[in-house]
This record gives sequence, structure tokens and C-alpha cells, in this order.
Amino acid sequence: MIFVLKPGVAQPKIDDFAQRLEERGFKTFLSTGTEHTVVCLIGNTASIDMDAVVETNDIVEYGRRVTEPYKAVNRNVHPADTMVKVGEVVFGQGMFQVISGPCSVESEEQIIAVARSVKASGATLLRGGAFKPRTSPYAFKGLQEEGLRLLLLAKRETGLPIVTEVMNQTQLPLFEDIDVIQIGARNMQNFDLLREVGRFNKPVLLKRGLANTLEELLMSAEYILSEGNNQVILCERGIRTFETATRNTLDISAVPLLKQKSHLPVIVDPSHAAGLRGLVSPLARAAVAVGADGLMIETHNDPANALSDGAQSLDLLQFDVLMQDLKARIEFEGKCLGN
Amino acid sequence: MIFVLKPGVAQPKIDDFAQRLEERGFKTFLSTGTEHTVVCLIGNTASIDMDAVVETNDIVEYGRRVTEPYKAVNRNVHPADTMVKVGEVVFGQGMFQVISGPCSVESEEQIIAVARSVKASGATLLRGGAFKPRTSPYAFKGLQEEGLRLLLLAKRETGLPIVTEVMNQTQLPLFEDIDVIQIGARNMQNFDLLREVGRFNKPVLLKRGLANTLEELLMSAEYILSEGNNQVILCERGIRTFETATRNTLDISAVPLLKQKSHLPVIVDPSHAAGLRGLVSPLARAAVAVGADGLMIETHNDPANALSDGAQSLDLLQFDVLMQDLKARIEFEGKCLGN
Amino acid sequence: MIFVLKPGVAQPKIDDFAQRLEERGFKTFLSTGTEHTVVCLIGNTASIDMDAVVETNDIVEYGRRVTEPYKAVNRNVHPADTMVKVGEVVFGQGMFQVISGPCSVESEEQIIAVARSVKASGATLLRGGAFKPRTSPYAFKGLQEEGLRLLLLAKRETGLPIVTEVMNQTQLPLFEDIDVIQIGARNMQNFDLLREVGRFNKPVLLKRGLANTLEELLMSAEYILSEGNNQVILCERGIRTFETATRNTLDISAVPLLKQKSHLPVIVDPSHAAGLRGLVSPLARAAVAVGADGLMIETHNDPANALSDGAQSLDLLQFDVLMQDLKARIEFEGKCLGN
Amino acid sequence: MIFVLKPGVAQPKIDDFAQRLEERGFKTFLSTGTEHTVVCLIGNTASIDMDAVVETNDIVEYGRRVTEPYKAVNRNVHPADTMVKVGEVVFGQGMFQVISGPCSVESEEQIIAVARSVKASGATLLRGGAFKPRTSPYAFKGLQEEGLRLLLLAKRETGLPIVTEVMNQTQLPLFEDIDVIQIGARNMQNFDLLREVGRFNKPVLLKRGLANTLEELLMSAEYILSEGNNQVILCERGIRTFETATRNTLDISAVPLLKQKSHLPVIVDPSHAAGLRGLVSPLARAAVAVGADGLMIETHNDPANALSDGAQSLDLLQFDVLMQDLKARIEFEGKCLGN
Repeated sequence: MIFVLKPGVAQPKIDDFAQRLEERGFKTFLSTGTEHTVVCLIGNTASIDMDAVVETNDIVEYGRRVTEPYKAVNRNVHPADTMVKVGEVVFGQGMFQVISGPCSVESEEQIIAVARSVKASGATLLRGGAFKPRTSPYAFKGLQEEGLRLLLLAKRETGLPIVTEVMNQTQLPLFEDIDVIQIGARNMQNFDLLREVGRFNKPVLLKRGLANTLEELLMSAEYILSEGNNQVILCERGIRTFETATRNTLDISAVPLLKQKSHLPVIVDPSHAAGLRGLVSPLARAAVAVGADGLMIETHNDPANALSDGAQSLDLLQFDVLMQDLKARIEFEGKCLGN
Repeated sequence: MIFVLKPGVAQPKIDDFAQRLEERGFKTFLSTGTEHTVVCLIGNTASIDMDAVVETNDIVEYGRRVTEPYKAVNRNVHPADTMVKVGEVVFGQGMFQVISGPCSVESEEQIIAVARSVKASGATLLRGGAFKPRTSPYAFKGLQEEGLRLLLLAKRETGLPIVTEVMNQTQLPLFEDIDVIQIGARNMQNFDLLREVGRFNKPVLLKRGLANTLEELLMSAEYILSEGNNQVILCERGIRTFETATRNTLDISAVPLLKQKSHLPVIVDPSHAAGLRGLVSPLARAAVAVGADGLMIETHNDPANALSDGAQSLDLLQFDVLMQDLKARIEFEGKCLGN
Repeated sequence: MIFVLKPGVAQPKIDDFAQRLEERGFKTFLSTGTEHTVVCLIGNTASIDMDAVVETNDIVEYGRRVTEPYKAVNRNVHPADTMVKVGEVVFGQGMFQVISGPCSVESEEQIIAVARSVKASGATLLRGGAFKPRTSPYAFKGLQEEGLRLLLLAKRETGLPIVTEVMNQTQLPLFEDIDVIQIGARNMQNFDLLREVGRFNKPVLLKRGLANTLEELLMSAEYILSEGNNQVILCERGIRTFETATRNTLDISAVPLLKQKSHLPVIVDPSHAAGLRGLVSPLARAAVAVGADGLMIETHNDPANALSDGAQSLDLLQFDVLMQDLKARIEFEGKCLGN
Repeated sequence: MIFVLKPGVAQPKIDDFAQRLEERGFKTFLSTGTEHTVVCLIGNTASIDMDAVVETNDIVEYGRRVTEPYKAVNRNVHPADTMVKVGEVVFGQGMFQVISGPCSVESEEQIIAVARSVKASGATLLRGGAFKPRTSPYAFKGLQEEGLRLLLLAKRETGLPIVTEVMNQTQLPLFEDIDVIQIGARNMQNFDLLREVGRFNKPVLLKRGLANTLEELLMSAEYILSEGNNQVILCERGIRTFETATRNTLDISAVPLLKQKSHLPVIVDPSHAAGLRGLVSPLARAAVAVGADGLMIETHNDPANALSDGAQSLDLLQFDVLMQDLKARIEFEGKCLGN
């Protein structure tokens, strides 16, 4: 950690500042420039509230951290790619996975029909919402436990592993047979939930929050890994910006950046990013090309009458057409769809 | 709800579209312009996924809602200001309240000392974090239950009602003696928590999320009111923008806008908005002038050594100086501090 | 244009409002819902300041435009793709172009060396800044007229058409021999410059502003087309968001959206979007896959000593490696590099 | 300037890096931590492209500037408040000025009527647009030269100094008799215009761009001061964020921050910030309380029929009511309206 002092501070004040830091167990090192003196702090600075030091010492102009705040997820610490295994399906290390299914599970007929169809088209995992976070208290909030039951039925029918969202930690006991636990964007900084999921010993799909930086996303993954669970898949799903032509702005740069900073697999959700069905296919193609390890795409057997997110869902034929296109692209990248 | 059709759609297609909407129980009304036909939908349209209708009907260009999606919090529905009563302390209707205290409760000595001091300066409620949401799993996360116990001790000493944050619904039973339940910015769309708090029958302080619109804030308040609890105080605490000179950008316009749209009281938290101690006082003055019903200001007996948020905390003398200034301003506005 | 009235407005007030609009030359049409009355306005509403009508009539809740404000650039008006021809090089209609070169022209040796190298690698146009917009008055501002002369020298040597930025309309006479006039992001809403460039009869590369919506970008293109020049290439180069890990956030969705809304070709500048050399190649690959008509990539013979933008420039070998990769991808898309 | 090296870099590479910097004329200083080595650079680092050094040296993790990039506008360099004098009207040093008038000058009757009325209400300068930047090429773009003539007529009638916007440097000769030259938000980074205005020797009102940081605003002011003109008034007018309930988000924190960093006076434009007439008065009150040196408020004799910005204009009676309220507030702050 570095503290840059204001110009013209007298030496005794500098010495006093440095001594107080040394009393807290750090070594300090002064670098005196033409205008500013810089105090370099050596030791484990994780316990220091840097901003507090700045604001409460009149002589300090600002401070900077030298090391990244995340450890377990850091590629510097763990250089090789982490593989996330969902049964025989693998995320990372040259594999490419496509998670597909409806926003909400609505009925047995619907989820079985969608599961069969997306599997035939090439999807390798099934998604479907049982517990739905909704902006309005009056909107459909999912079939809840019955939704989970129907997802497991669809798994029995098709063999597709199941990805579904948990909304709070009291629901976790219901998720014992679910394959991948999804943490939704609005829960990315629900830290108690992250801890519980870290102890739950299942692969986790962690979606980036609407207004969260990549560093914050990695810190949330760090919560899960710090509890002993390294089976985490990161998901870019669009951030909130001033642009209103799309529901969110897909931050495609997040994919290569996250893969540089971390060893975890990274997938893209073009459906939530765009919020518009007509953009899902081009964005999915971009995600393959930019180096993502997978995709999450909303599909529905009857989008016009979907109980949620119909606007951004592909119908089953559209998804099939997209998958045939994506297969050639995945191969072009030298990657492998499925297991 | 209104659907604007694309130019040049043939009449039979329009009739078919309108008929399908009528089959779902709505009355429709056509308005034919020089370029576009507009289909007006009459009835309770809350159940319609407007975007899905747009995306799944080729003839539709876009849709618009005519009515606001929130009801119980809407000033149109309930024109008079709602008073939120915390014992004898009242938010709204010309009263002005100042909530003050440390980011985290750290020890009995600390919280008692701060409580006594801020009370003497004029604060009317005591805040203090027992359960702390932190970006890093390695940061101090609060004294937890012990923190609640110390807050209640401070209440006994000073009579100040207590405001403190709940992080998830499993903690609620511990909050029986707390006066105001705070929902933090990161939990503004933790919908299960909102529902539980709506049933808990205590005043709620609902903070705006970092990237949430005012409409979303009102919808989250709607969750609480829809469970029967109308004792909700809204809190503007800064939003996330491109500007990095401040921790967040205080959206001061939110105060008059929320008060126009809703009947709930609105307060401002300048400490989290700015993240810089030197801005807290000018922003507090602006909040009084813009029409807020109160303030929430972080204070600490020793900011330089605070375990969290030291950078934005006023020390007790700075707070006292600010309060003497604010008292004159509250009076200038014709409002009344305290009870 | 539609005006939604507040609930409970008395009929005489509604009639009066409608009559005043009719006096301004419009036909009106009332649609009466259970809560709200909607007034539909028929006629050429471009001359109406909708917001002013809303704010100055107490009975109006809000208004909405039914038609898009851009005409000449609108794909509804002109369904076929526009080809932009720069000599024998064509943008649009299945062609793909790569513009490359240094941020700033620095010397004859530099620009000739870069031009020869990028041409050998496959670039089809040469870029280079002669007039440089810089945040600081103390930074290098380009070689100015001498820079233009050196660019034309490089063109003579290599045959590559030249793309370079004009900073204000008084410079335009110097650009007579330049092939493509670039309007930089900071000038996207310099409306006088847009008009002049519209009359200048050269292809224009119009970059999106840092905080401009796609609709505003199209309106700026409309300025140029409305003066009679339809040879406009749109360029997505990243927008300003809360994320600081990249210089800007590349809005990759802009490409398919702009191509849906407009008939103009769209290219991507991954260098300015990312601001980090290590992201240029993955973003370039994403741009090809998402359907862009070309790329603009900064290159330099010695990035470490570049006078500007060294951080985001590829060196000549890195560019060559990227181009060999991109050629296979352009072919995969069924597009054609060059002429 | 500081460069933080990656962990585990061998000493010879560090020495080589430092030596190359020394060859460019800097002194270097190494600080070796447990994980990272920090290279501190001493000397005038304004000429270094820091990002380029980072991206082109594999051993460097990141760099930081120690000193702020602006000099002439920096309060460290010039601690006393700068007074900007417009005839006998003064901005700064305890004076408070209110600029008022219509968005566009529309006719002699209009501008004279507005000027007389706002003067009677207490405004101290008259604003009015003659050259209007408009998003659409089809919108009213002002009366141009005739508009300037009418403004000067209004000045003769009332004695109010005139503030009006210049759109490009070729117009400057027409502004010889104008009192304050306004640089609009979209031109904040039109660097050639800033330079010309710096040589024009008239007070300048510099509005913050929609997506510009405070540091960029200060750098744009630096352009003007670096040409010898220190008569610059900064204006906060709202920034572009994700919130759509207001036209822009007024960044009220900008006022105290700019006044801490710089010695220039700072005013607030609540009309453009909010875009809604109903918010202008509360935001004006907040601006006075937060410490602004003045206000710029749009007024119109007939907002419902204004040719531009009617939605956010106060009518003359509303402005008069607001001014009576503001006078008491300006006095409360110990400031003085007018001269």
C-alpha cells in the first residue's frame, strides 16, 4: 500500500505518520520526490482501511493498494484453468457448454417439451426458474418447490443436468438434487448467501450484478472459494448504463478480462443482456468468438404467452437454427461442445 | 397499455391482433394515424408481459404502459403524507430526524460514547452496524448478535431509538427489540427479505440500490406495503455512475421526485453518497434545503482507527458543529427537529 | 404522438386540451380507459416540443412519440444496405475492411513503416492522427498540416486510402485529398461540423460519443445525410460506464441494433473501447462474429515510445498475427476482405 | 509517477527498466515490498504516457500519477478564490449571481419582456440562446445573428449583462459585445474552441459535459487559462446516468468538490439537470445551500409555446416566486446577490 503525501509537509509530521503505521506492525519506506513524498507500506495490508487513513490524516493526499484484494480466485495464485464438473459435463479447458430453457418453469408439459427440444438441438444443460425474483410483488414468482420437482422430472426424461436459481439460503435444502446452483444478478452481493453456497458443495453459477465491477464479481466468487468450494462459473449478463435501446449493455470485454485475472470459467447470457430476441443470436456468436466457455440462452415453446421474459426468449425453432450455427463456430475455435 | 404498430400493417392482421387481446379479457380501441396505428388496451393490464407481446408479434413496433406499476406507495392513491412513527419520533409531516452513529458497533465503550455525544449534539436516532455486508470475505463483518446487544444497551443509556441493518430473513427474530429495520442498498431487491420485513410490523428504512431507478425503489417499497406494513422510510444514498471523484453520485433530485410520486418520507445519507468526510456537511445542507425529511450521518469517536468506513465518518466534534448549523436550517425550512 | 392524461380529468378540460392541439393543425383522437384518457395526435408532429406540452398542461401525465425522429438514415425508409465507396474499397454489402495505423502521425519514417507493414498484413485503409484532440493542453496535439502531408505520402507509397480526423470546420479545406473524414467521439454532436461535412462530399467515419445513445448517433448521421451526403460509416468505440477495468465499455450490441435500425455500414474500434492492448484481439474477433462491416485498429512500430495511445496499440507483429486470424474469420462469415 | 511491478520479477529486469527511465531524464527510486517492487519516478512526468509504459513493459502491473494533471486551475497553485468580473457583477468571493432567460431568443417582444421581468424579480444576468445545438437537424436552431442583436437590445433596455452560447470559433467575431461566452456541455471537449476562447479575453461560462468527470472539466478550464484567460465560471448541469426519471442527474457534490480542487467560481443549472419544471425550485434551493456561487435558470413568458426546452422553463411568475425565496436563502448563507 502506498500513501502519497501533500506537497510541503514538514519532516517531523512525516516521521510521526510513518511511526504510527510501524506501530501497527508494518514496515515503511519513504520516497521523496520534487513535489510529493510517498510512503510505501510493507506487510499484509488487508486489515488496513486505506480510505480511513487518507481521510483522517491531514498530510495524506491519497492512497493506493499495490496488490489485488482477491486471492483464491486470482490467476497469479492459481495459474491453471479450473475445470468445473457437472457430472460428465465440464466447463473450462477447451470445453464449451450451452445452458438453455425457459425463464420460468410453468408446467410439466412445458418444461419436458422444452428440455427434449433443446437437448435435440445440442444444449448440454437445462435451465428453468422455480423461484423467480420479480421487480413487482404482483408478478408471477415461479412455481417454487413444484418447479424444482418438474425440473428434476425433465432431467430424468432427458439426462440434462439442471441449473436453477436459489433466492435465499433457507431454500438450499430443497436444492440437494439440483446440479448447478445459480446466484442471480441481484444476489451477487448477498454475502450470507454466498457463504452458505460456498459450504454447499455444488457447482455455482455466479451472475454479475447490474452495477458491479469485475473486481466486485471476483470478490463475490472469493466468498464462495474461501468457504472451500472452487466450483464456480462466472457469468456476464449485461450491466446497467445510460443506453436504453437494450435492456442492459453486454460487457463483452468482461470475458477476456476475467479470464486474464482469474482461473474460473466464464460464460455469457445474451438473453438478459439484450432483452430483445433479435439480438440473442449475434451476441451468442460474439461470445463464442471472444473466448467464452459457454452460453446461457432463454428458450420457450410459446414466447408470446410466456409468464416472464417472453420478449427475450427464442422459440424452439429459432434456438435450433442458432445451435446449428454455433456448432460450426465452436469447432472453428477448436473447442468441444458437450462432454 | 398501448401498442404502436409498424407502418403499413394490413387491416386483417390488426383485427386479428386486437381480437387475441380481447380474448384475454381486455377491451381494445384503435387509433389510426398517418403512419402508425395505435392499439389502446383497456382493463387491468398488470398481468400482461408487454415486452413479450411486442417481441412475439411481428406487427408491433413497441408498447407503453399508461399507469404506474406501483399502487400502495403511489401518491395518486394515497395523497396525504404518511407519518412513520418510531416511538415518539416521527418521520414526515414537517418533522425532521437525524440518525447518527458509527458504521460498525465495535465495543461497549465506543457505542455508548458515540450515542451520548450525538444525542447531546441533537441526533434523534442512533445507527450502528451489527451485521455488516462487506465486499471482501476477509474484512470485518460486525459484532453480529453482540452488536445488537450493545445497541440496546446504548438505547437504555440515552433513550435514542435504534436503526440497524438486517442482512437476511433468518436474522429477523434477533431484531424484536430494534426500533427501525434497515434494508441495505445491496438488498433493495432481495424480494424474499422485503416480504418478510413487510410482515414483521416494524418501521423499515429502505435504502436505494446502487444501480436502481426510483421506480424500482418504489416497487421494492410496494413489496413491504403489500404485506401490510406502511411504515417505510425511503433513503437516497448515492448511485453508481462514471464519476470516480466521489464514492457514489448523490442523486439529490430523487428527494423531490420521490415525494411527488409517493406519500412516504424520504431521507438522505450523505456519508455513503460521497464517501469523503469533507463533503458530508455541504451535502447535508443541500438535503435539508431540497426538502428531505431527515438525514443519516456516520460518526465515530476515532475515525482514523474505525474498523469500517472511517473515511466518510465525521468525528464527534465535527458532527456537533454540523448539527448546530443544521438546526438553524431546519428551522429556516419551517420544520421541527425531534418530537 | 400520444398524450396520457392524469386520472379523473373532467371532460371539458380534455376537450379544451384537444381543441388547442387541433388549432395547431393536428387531428386528435381520444381513447378512454378505466383510469386514464389517451389523446392520440395525428399529423406531422416533428414541430411539437412534446415535453413542453406535458409540463405546461396540468392535466397531462406524459407523452410518447410514435415515430422515430430520424428519417434519411432509417432502414424503414431505405431498406437496402448503403455501400460506402472509398475508391475501390467498399464498406457494406458483404465487404469487410480493416483500417489500421498509429494514433498519431509522428514522422515520415514512422508512418511509411507502419503503412507498408499493415498493408502487407492485410489492412485495407490507413489511419493516422494529424490533428489530435487531447484532454490536456500540455499533451502532444499532432503534427497538424505536416501530418496530413505525411499521410498522403504514405498513400502514394502504399496505395492505401487515408482516414484521418478533422477537429473543426475551418480545417476542412486541408482535407481535399483525404479519402475518409473522421468525426471523433467528442465531436459527434458538434452540429455545425456535421453540417459542413455533409456538404463536403467525402465519405465520413462517424464515431459514437462516449455518452451518446444509438438514437443520438443516428440523429448525428441524419445531419450529414440531410445535407446530401449519404456516404457515412458508423463506428462503435465504447461508451462510458461505471466499470473502470477498461477505458470504455465496448457496446457490442450496438452493431446488430444499428444495422437493424439503419442502412449504413457499421464498424468497431476495439482499441479505444478497451484501452488495453491485451483485449484488442478478442474484441476484434467478437466484432467480426457479431456482424460488423469492418474494424479500426491502432498499430505502432514502437508502442512503448508512442506519443499517444501507446497502451492500446498493437505492435506490427501482433497486428500481423491478428490479421491472419481475422482473415479466416471473415471468410467464415462469408464476407470478403478488401475489394 | 509510480510503477508497481508484477510479483517475482528478477532484479536485472528491474534495473534495466529503471535505467531506461533514467535515460529519459528522470530519477528513479525503488521500494521493495514482500510481494511487489514499486518504482517511484521523480521529475516532470507530464511528458510520459503512463499507460503506454505499463502496456509495453511486461514486468509492470500498473502505474499511478502522484500529482494532479491540472496546474493553472489548481487551488494548490492559486489558493485564493478567483473573482470573475462581468462589468460590475462579480462571481465568487461571497457574491451570488442568478442568470435567467429563455432557452432560445424567439423575438424582440419575447426577449424584452423576459429580460424586464427577470430583472424585476432579481436576476443579475440575462441568458438567451441565439445559436442552438439541437439533436435533430430538423429542430429550430435559433435566430442566429439576429438573436445576438436582440440580446444586445435587451441589454440596452435593462442593463443586464448577456450570457449566450458560441457553437464554433468562426462565430466568435460576432460575440465582441457579448458579456459572457458560454461553452455548452457538448463542446466542453472541443479543444480548438477552448483555445480560441482562451485568447478572446471575455469571461467564459464553461458547462460540464454529459459524461465528463470533474477532472476533465478542470482540464478543459485549464485549456482556457493556459491561453491567458482566467475569467472562467464552471457550471454543473447534470450528468448522464442510468436513471431516466430526470433528463440528467444533477451531481450536486460537484460544487463543493470543484471548489476544493480549484479556485474558480462554480454555478448550477437546475433546469437542464432536471429537465422538469417541477424540480427546478427544490434543486435551486439545494444549490444555494451546498455552496454554489450562482444559478442559471431557464424562464419563458409562455413555456407551453416555447420553441425549445419549454418543459424545463419556469414561467415569469414562477421565477418571481422562486427568487423571493432564494433571496432569503442567499442572505442566510451570508452571501450577497448582485453587485
